[in-house]
Amino acid sequence: MLDFRPILFILGLLLSTLALAMSLPALVDAATGHADWQVFLASAGLTLFIGVSLILTMRGSDMAIGIREAFILTIASWLGVTLFASLPFVFAELNLSFADAFFEAMSGITTTGATVITNLDAAPPGILLWRALLQWLGGIGIIVTAVAVLPMLKVGGMQLFRMESSDTSDKVLPRAAQISTAIGAIYFILTALCAIAYWLAGMPGFDAIAHAMTTIATGGFSTSDDSLAAFATPGIEWIAVVFMIVGSLPFVLYLQAVRGRPMSLFRDSQVRWFLSLALTLVVIIVLILWVSQDFTSGQSLRLSAFNTISILTGTGYSTAAFDNWGSFALTIFFLIMFIGGCAGSTTCGIKIFRFQILYETATAQIRRLVQPHGVFIPYYNRNPITDEVTMSVMSFFFFYVLVFIALALGLSALGLDFLTALSGAATSISNVGPGLGPVIGPNGTFTTLPDAAKWLLSAGMLLGRLELFTILVLFAPAFWKP
Amino acid sequence: MLDFRPILFILGLLLSTLALAMSLPALVDAATGHADWQVFLASAGLTLFIGVSLILTMRGSDMAIGIREAFILTIASWLGVTLFASLPFVFAELNLSFADAFFEAMSGITTTGATVITNLDAAPPGILLWRALLQWLGGIGIIVTAVAVLPMLKVGGMQLFRMESSDTSDKVLPRAAQISTAIGAIYFILTALCAIAYWLAGMPGFDAIAHAMTTIATGGFSTSDDSLAAFATPGIEWIAVVFMIVGSLPFVLYLQAVRGRPMSLFRDSQVRWFLSLALTLVVIIVLILWVSQDFTSGQSLRLSAFNTISILTGTGYSTAAFDNWGSFALTIFFLIMFIGGCAGSTTCGIKIFRFQILYETATAQIRRLVQPHGVFIPYYNRNPITDEVTMSVMSFFFFYVLVFIALALGLSALGLDFLTALSGAATSISNVGPGLGPVIGPNGTFTTLPDAAKWLLSAGMLLGRLELFTILVLFAPAFWKP
Repeated sequence: MLDFRPILFILGLLLSTLALAMSLPALVDAATGHADWQVFLASAGLTLFIGVSLILTMRGSDMAIGIREAFILTIASWLGVTLFASLPFVFAELNLSFADAFFEAMSGITTTGATVITNLDAAPPGILLWRALLQWLGGIGIIVTAVAVLPMLKVGGMQLFRMESSDTSDKVLPRAAQISTAIGAIYFILTALCAIAYWLAGMPGFDAIAHAMTTIATGGFSTSDDSLAAFATPGIEWIAVVFMIVGSLPFVLYLQAVRGRPMSLFRDSQVRWFLSLALTLVVIIVLILWVSQDFTSGQSLRLSAFNTISILTGTGYSTAAFDNWGSFALTIFFLIMFIGGCAGSTTCGIKIFRFQILYETATAQIRRLVQPHGVFIPYYNRNPITDEVTMSVMSFFFFYVLVFIALALGLSALGLDFLTALSGAATSISNVGPGLGPVIGPNGTFTTLPDAAKWLLSAGMLLGRLELFTILVLFAPAFWKP
Repeated sequence: MLDFRPILFILGLLLSTLALAMSLPALVDAATGHADWQVFLASAGLTLFIGVSLILTMRGSDMAIGIREAFILTIASWLGVTLFASLPFVFAELNLSFADAFFEAMSGITTTGATVITNLDAAPPGILLWRALLQWLGGIGIIVTAVAVLPMLKVGGMQLFRMESSDTSDKVLPRAAQISTAIGAIYFILTALCAIAYWLAGMPGFDAIAHAMTTIATGGFSTSDDSLAAFATPGIEWIAVVFMIVGSLPFVLYLQAVRGRPMSLFRDSQVRWFLSLALTLVVIIVLILWVSQDFTSGQSLRLSAFNTISILTGTGYSTAAFDNWGSFALTIFFLIMFIGGCAGSTTCGIKIFRFQILYETATAQIRRLVQPHGVFIPYYNRNPITDEVTMSVMSFFFFYVLVFIALALGLSALGLDFLTALSGAATSISNVGPGLGPVIGPNGTFTTLPDAAKWLLSAGMLLGRLELFTILVLFAPAFWKP
């Protein structure tokens, strides 16, 4: 029998936190005289009521939950929070439909950054802050999930990142809570640093805070329809580049750095691969711009560094219509959507460590063909990769392709053109933000899509964010009759 | 030390066979008074001279070749034959450049069916017969390679199809030769049946023979610019559908059927999956046509069955511009290019058995997440799948995606648009034939592409035809200094 009580208890805690977060936009709107403060206050009240009710009725239940409960807890948390987070979007001045509101909330919570809201520049500050807060909470939420939950669930090779003491289940929760708190503090400090840097570089205070939240979360929501192009100075762009990269590295390594092992960050092979890849891609796009477009070499470097890092990390800011830089650049931007950053960061996508494992396994396979009697063991970060991890990662890769195909087919069945359907599927499953092409590209929005497409994209964002398997297990008959 | 002598000896045998094949178009052109007969005769003479020289100088060498020699033999055979097969294209009336001629020969030998030749309807019969012959020889060539060579090399899971007695290497060659001869006879008879059926349905004799050769080989070269639309009657189309499917099933099972086990064909899970998939896809496309286009239900069925089976099996005939049937159909046609038919058939692509293994492994993975202490063994055709086969197939899938991406990037770097680059990469690595869109789609040709793109596509065709690994091993340093 599944025991839903601990699940509902934790959901209650999360909803109460969400309600507290909702009071911030209420305060801001009230202070600046925008009527939406009532919407945020009412939403906060409702959310807090449900949250506290769950806590009170479900407390005292046995918290030693099983594997299946842990899967349901993860899904229920993300879905429940998204549902309540969409309330302000429904009732605020914007008057979004429920499909639009849910899409916007899901895009926020999953740090995707795709938006259905137009005329952001004239939107009241409450809504803008709410969007930023959602991404910020989603960012720390996924780091905690990736550090404390996914390794235990052995999702898509994440068992590689199990904490040393996590084998005995009674120590897992306290230790996870301790690490999560420490990482949360680091996350907060990095966000503050980013906000101060933006502000010093000339961004207005409110925009600096909002953008800092969505930069460190590699989320990509902006306070302007023109995204960061509206604030574009070289200083602000390079600050964004730095903090998008900061958001893409494993936060556990920052913790180790603070605790006296600063070099572990640069000794980590995932970090090295990611930084090398990012540099290579920036250089390639610089060359493309330099050869085929009318930019100076300085402009080319700025445009390339900013937009390439933004899409690679799945942030989704833009300072240019990068899908108009020719067919080669378009294809590169399409493909790097799938990559993402490091495990345990705020990024989504297939992630660097999986490419490392796929590559090591596949090349070991080739060596085995040449020398059938040789023994070839693939390594990751100087440790041999177990068959269990390999199978896990390879199955993840297969399902990633499969889910991408299903989304692309679904979107094209709804009438979206080839480029919109393919890039829409990629941008949602990898939590990037904009797609490619005139409809959902960096200059477009998702608002014109049919509702069914918005629901499909919302599902894709959640699937990608929870590393597919967390949701796909629900389709296994064994899950329901063990 | 690599011993090249047995490799060159076998290449000599293959070139001599190719020279004999070249004499057929020479005869036909001579009989119909076309000047190209001299080109074919000269090409045949040169090829025969090289072939016989290799046989005479290399005979008597030790034929017990090692793994590395077997890889080189496979690549050298396909490349060498393609090179000499391109001679008539260079020197015939068509006056193709070497890049074009090599592309056309590669497209023939690999049973792809992409063409750079326009105005086929006015081309002399010799060239038309030569194109058909190349695909026919390529078709039986790949069946023999898949039955006798690839399982021994353990390429991409092909070890599943090892012959029972093939573990002791001294029995491999005689038994492989015996099976290859028997399968060759079946291949010949099926081609003859197809030709007779086309002829009885009203196709002129020459066209019936040429199309029979390219149908059973799932090749797709036609004698008309309009492909099979030029001969389109319901009878001819349904004959093509039947024989394209015949070419997509494992020929070893036909041999078993002839030897008294006719039911083994339908008991094979790969065959069942393929036929179910083909039926499902045809029905989906019928529904799309019926809903969105102005066809009667009968027309919809004919158009869907013919063009869907043609692209799924990688044949590449067309009776309509199926890339103009809307975005959903376009996306489906793009995706099914990757699938192909069964192992041991004339089709290319990822192939059904690999999807079965990927699916079984990945779902076993999901069950393992739900019940971490359970034992879940994936099965293929009622046999447990070994970890070796799983790794092999999963690595194949990863490299397939990687090579596709590399080709798409290369083609887009050469200036091809997004749809042309992506579908061009897919159609070459999967040996389909036409791409999608106005340039290389069913109504276009590859002739307008830059030479560099033609070389890239030729490389893609060979990589796909030889199941990637056969060529990728050359890039392993271990291959050269064992």
